[in-house]
Amino acid sequence: MARVLIIGAGGVSSVVVHKCAQANDVFTEIHLASRTKAKCDAIAESVKKRYGVTVHTASVDADNVSELVALINKVKPVMVINVALPYQDLTIMDACLECNVHYLDTANYEPIDLAKFEYKWQWAYQDKFKEKGLMALLGSGFDPGVTNVFCAYGQKHLLDEIHVLDIIDANAGDHGLPFATNFNPEINIREVTARGRYWERGEWVETDPLSWKMSFDFPDGIGPKNCYLMYHEELESLVQNLKGIRRARFWMTFSDNYLNHLKVFGGVGLLGIEPIEYKGQSIVPIQFLSKLLPDPASLGPLTKGKTCIGCVMQGIKNGQEKTYYVYNICQHEDCYEELGSQAISYTTGVPAMIGAMMMVTGKWMKAGVWNMEQMDPDPFMEQLNKFGLPWQVAELPNK
Amino acid sequence: MARVLIIGAGGVSSVVVHKCAQANDVFTEIHLASRTKAKCDAIAESVKKRYGVTVHTASVDADNVSELVALINKVKPVMVINVALPYQDLTIMDACLECNVHYLDTANYEPIDLAKFEYKWQWAYQDKFKEKGLMALLGSGFDPGVTNVFCAYGQKHLLDEIHVLDIIDANAGDHGLPFATNFNPEINIREVTARGRYWERGEWVETDPLSWKMSFDFPDGIGPKNCYLMYHEELESLVQNLKGIRRARFWMTFSDNYLNHLKVFGGVGLLGIEPIEYKGQSIVPIQFLSKLLPDPASLGPLTKGKTCIGCVMQGIKNGQEKTYYVYNICQHEDCYEELGSQAISYTTGVPAMIGAMMMVTGKWMKAGVWNMEQMDPDPFMEQLNKFGLPWQVAELPNK
Repeated sequence: MARVLIIGAGGVSSVVVHKCAQANDVFTEIHLASRTKAKCDAIAESVKKRYGVTVHTASVDADNVSELVALINKVKPVMVINVALPYQDLTIMDACLECNVHYLDTANYEPIDLAKFEYKWQWAYQDKFKEKGLMALLGSGFDPGVTNVFCAYGQKHLLDEIHVLDIIDANAGDHGLPFATNFNPEINIREVTARGRYWERGEWVETDPLSWKMSFDFPDGIGPKNCYLMYHEELESLVQNLKGIRRARFWMTFSDNYLNHLKVFGGVGLLGIEPIEYKGQSIVPIQFLSKLLPDPASLGPLTKGKTCIGCVMQGIKNGQEKTYYVYNICQHEDCYEELGSQAISYTTGVPAMIGAMMMVTGKWMKAGVWNMEQMDPDPFMEQLNKFGLPWQVAELPNK
Repeated sequence: MARVLIIGAGGVSSVVVHKCAQANDVFTEIHLASRTKAKCDAIAESVKKRYGVTVHTASVDADNVSELVALINKVKPVMVINVALPYQDLTIMDACLECNVHYLDTANYEPIDLAKFEYKWQWAYQDKFKEKGLMALLGSGFDPGVTNVFCAYGQKHLLDEIHVLDIIDANAGDHGLPFATNFNPEINIREVTARGRYWERGEWVETDPLSWKMSFDFPDGIGPKNCYLMYHEELESLVQNLKGIRRARFWMTFSDNYLNHLKVFGGVGLLGIEPIEYKGQSIVPIQFLSKLLPDPASLGPLTKGKTCIGCVMQGIKNGQEKTYYVYNICQHEDCYEELGSQAISYTTGVPAMIGAMMMVTGKWMKAGVWNMEQMDPDPFMEQLNKFGLPWQVAELPNK
């Protein structure tokens, strides 16, 4: 039914490719390309072994538009699923426009030399995609992605207006190592140590990094955990698309051990993004540190425990104040058993496949550049239950 | 009366040169050389300003015996005071032998490619120095150095036999920075994270790094601090030279914050001494980390508080069990006010000058290679009181 090209061959990509192969009635021909073809071949081999499905692999430099164009024109996919680095979103969007194919990604564009991510660079492509009759679906991972869909679901079925939104992301897994990050250490640490920001009655309010803390009692035996306020990219589009929203915040759990490491690294300058001179060489401290840290891909077999990501939405239904919590629980060991991946990659990769499925099956096909909450949540949430990310709705007491 | 040549121009050297200038009735001509002449000139300028004494400066590569020989033959000193790096002890000893001048250092030889220090390499020079009628005095800093002299004092005046020795080194100063080391970070961290070792009834017993802890109640308002068992170089000679010794241990205080940093650094591999490949370059993690840490020389103006280093000696006097504690208290702020140095450099540099004074005044002149406890402690301890490191003797309850 559809030929797709997946770009990028990291932990998330592996999940996307495996999940596309599981849905091979939809994704009838799968192509995979990244800078290092050997990484693509390893994923293809695993897919072949598990499902007997052939994945076609190639090498491509995703920073280079003309290389991308040559590859896309050769493969002729219906769409590109971009799970490369956030630095490469724009070159891949440019190539899709040039080749007349649809586009999907999981994380918004971030200039390589600026610790800053926002949608403005990608939203600026709105007219170009519309004019060509092409669709670009932005942020189709878990958060952003499923969290946006949960909000759309809340707005469609649970509440007439969402007034207060708290997106809460808990990784209660334990890898047993002194310190590791769940994805690219440089991007992860930059994100965590950035200033916080939340939406309050029409304005962004900034907070010092990790300065706001709350305890949240997670379901399914996870129990109470410390959560820290951070800025997270889905807030930018959600405050525009949720009618009546007054306050929107994003929280993430961190263990004391994790925060202690960040404090120590930061205190001696190891998180610096400016190069320093060392024996006549120019070295960026955080990049050198990243090199020493465990490869996130190596955490799969080590990590035990659950992730729990969801949205607490407080608002009005038929004139009454109500609070709902929509969430998913994912077990690290189950992800590893199914795909050889840890839950962080799994929870990002599955929604990327489902987003692509929505597009190629025509359920979400609309020219232009879109965020997830702008689409109908129902067909997407139906597939979450089928492809390993079942969700729950709970009513909570109002605060 | 005596012309001396000081090699090395770090924090300890600065103290030695200033103290020699204070004793310019003994050290009538002072020469100072290091790889970087500018560092020597800065010290010379400070000495000129404080005491009106001229220090002659030169550049020398202390790894290079023939360069050292050329310099020594030109200066013609009575002795060389070596306060360069421990890696350079042997080349400087070789040059002294060739030029017929006496030798003194503050720390024993350590091969640059082996995290291991012991006296065997320098003790092997015994016959060469004896045959030439030259003296080499090893380890004339505080610990080793003054601690050895305190033991010699205990053996001469306080006890007939020392059975149990605990050398306890407390730095109760606070620099207010997240993390810093008091001297060369690489050497400091290598020392602290090495396996511990102590002497027990004729044998060395090894311990895991920082695994043995005791609390000791320090005098002069410092109060109780956690002390950790480490191996330290003076133990090697003391267990040979103290008659009747049964147990000898060395302890150092570390704050929880300091140990937390070491644990974090160690856990992610930042203390590694093997080079790793990073962007085609070969980088030794601990050396890169050292580059990021504050220059120990910058701590002088920041550090407030006291050091307390001393020897607890338990043994027999006239058939009775007795325990004595001989110690020095040094105030960081006073050291900085007097010489612009922090106490760690001060407590090492003053004894180096006094050791040299013992030699050039003939009080400790004896051909061969010697450790400090093999000399008469009385004239040395008299000078400690005069040059800024006064000591106290306290009797403690037996344990």
